[in-house]
This record gives sequence, C-alpha cells and structure tokens, in this order.
Amino acid sequence: MNDLNGFDLEDLSLGMTATFAKTITEADIVLFAGVSGDNNAIHINEEFAASTAFGGRIAHGFLTASVISAAIAGRLPGPGSIYLEQRMRFLAPVRPGDTVHATVTVKEIHAERAHVTLGTICRVGNVNVVSGEAMVKVGSLKKREEKKKLALASV
Amino acid sequence: MNDLNGFDLEDLSLGMTATFAKTITEADIVLFAGVSGDNNAIHINEEFAASTAFGGRIAHGFLTASVISAAIAGRLPGPGSIYLEQRMRFLAPVRPGDTVHATVTVKEIHAERAHVTLGTICRVGNVNVVSGEAMVKVGSLKKREEKKKLALASV
Repeated sequence: MNDLNGFDLEDLSLGMTATFAKTITEADIVLFAGVSGDNNAIHINEEFAASTAFGGRIAHGFLTASVISAAIAGRLPGPGSIYLEQRMRFLAPVRPGDTVHATVTVKEIHAERAHVTLGTICRVGNVNVVSGEAMVKVGSLKKREEKKKLALASV
Repeated sequence: MNDLNGFDLEDLSLGMTATFAKTITEADIVLFAGVSGDNNAIHINEEFAASTAFGGRIAHGFLTASVISAAIAGRLPGPGSIYLEQRMRFLAPVRPGDTVHATVTVKEIHAERAHVTLGTICRVGNVNVVSGEAMVKVGSLKKREEKKKLALASV
C-alpha cells in the first residue's frame, strides 16, 4: 500500500475486486445537469420524460458511470492511481432513488508500465446498467525503494 | 429534424461537427465529488494537491468528459438521440477556471440500425485533454412516416 492507503502494483493480482455503491438522487441529477451542461429533457423535464417509453426522468448515463470513478479512486486501486482510459456501454435506465453498485475487477496487469486493466460494471439490483473497462496507472513500492536507495547513495 | 430540434438519421452526413463549451469551476468540482462519490484528494484537498506534480487541485476526468454528453445531447445529434457507448482517454489535467470545448464529429453512419459513431475531443486552449469516440442511436424521419402511413391505413 502507498501512503494514501492505495494499492501498489505489487499488491495487485488478477481477479481482485471492489465495489462502491451510491444512491442516485433527484438532487444528483439536477446538479449533474448543471456541472456538465447536459440539460436534455429526458433528465430535467418530468412532463416530457413521462410521455416517453421511460415513463419519467432518468439519470444521465455519465452520472451513473461516474460511480466507477469513485470505485477506482477510493477502493481499487484507490488513492494514488491515475485514471488513463474508460470505455462504457449504457445498457439500461437509472431512475432517481436507484442505488448504483459499481464493481471493478483486475483483468490484466502490465507490470512494465505499471498499467492495470479493470473490468467495470454498474448494477441496480440484478440489472447491469453500465458495462465497460478502465485502464489506470498505479504506483510501485519497488520503484519507490529504488529511488530512495539512489537518493541515499548520492548523499 | 425531429420535434425536439434534434437531427434525424436523414439529416446527418460524414464530417458534420458541433462544439459545446463550458468553464469548469471550483463549484463544479465540489459538486461532482458529491454526485459521483469520488472524493480523491487530488480533486478536493488543496494542501495535498499542491504537493503533487499537478501543483493544485484538478477536475475529475469524468467531469471534463461529461461536457461531451452535453455536446451530444444538446447539439449533435441533439435531443432525441440515445447515448449507447463512450470511450475516452484522459490526456491532460483540467484546472478550476479552464474552459473545456467538447467537439463531436460524425465519423460513421450505420443506416440500417440508425447508429452513428462520433469522434469526441475535449480541448482547453490548444491542448487535447480528453479524446475518444461515442456511439449514439438517432431517430429516422422515414421510419416515422412509414409508421404514420401504417396507422392511417389501419383506420
């Protein structure tokens, strides 16, 4: 682990997994419209949304998927990791009050570059609402110790 | 165009492009931490962030990329389109006060399924901060008219 309680390259193994869950409230949807600039009627206009196949307002796909960001930054690999890439497929609508469970799983470890590929999935109950894959860069205990040795040797 | 002023399949051609721009403020970063649950120190702790290579707090990559969502939902193809997929690479940090210009460009049109592939890029000044690709489903004027004809024929 690093000083921030995040996982180093040496701590990770294939299949390791972590979940972060968050209820997507009406307030989250309103605030996300504000921070993103996405004021699509399906998210902010109940009268319009009620007239569609969705039957009411739904969360922005990006808002639902952002719970993945929290799972990666806070859980696995956690603090100190650097987010490089995310692919995501929006599979099903999320409504105000739904609790999104974002699960990340170590799928590939590219040790030479300290890059890790994570499977990323968001679920509401038993329904997959977002699927995808992330790539992150992690720290390395070995590299930090080599740096320390070099620093000491140069004193 | 559809009733919401969004582009139909028949309106789109390769190379069509649109941009939506938004300044990412300190308030946006605080609110995004709240709606996503991503409270990584690099986004919310100025003392910590100042001690890193970034030299201060930066926006969440997902927050920057969410301006793409606004460009797609509001401009091209605009209202009525359904967001299916997004790939994104986080290339450079965005700081409070930076204005993100999200540009989307029609790259492929899959007429039989009414799917459109868009190139998506976010810039701050001349720097590409997020690159990627989106897939959206759009409506079709032809299909709507066929439905109307069928409805009239069955009267």
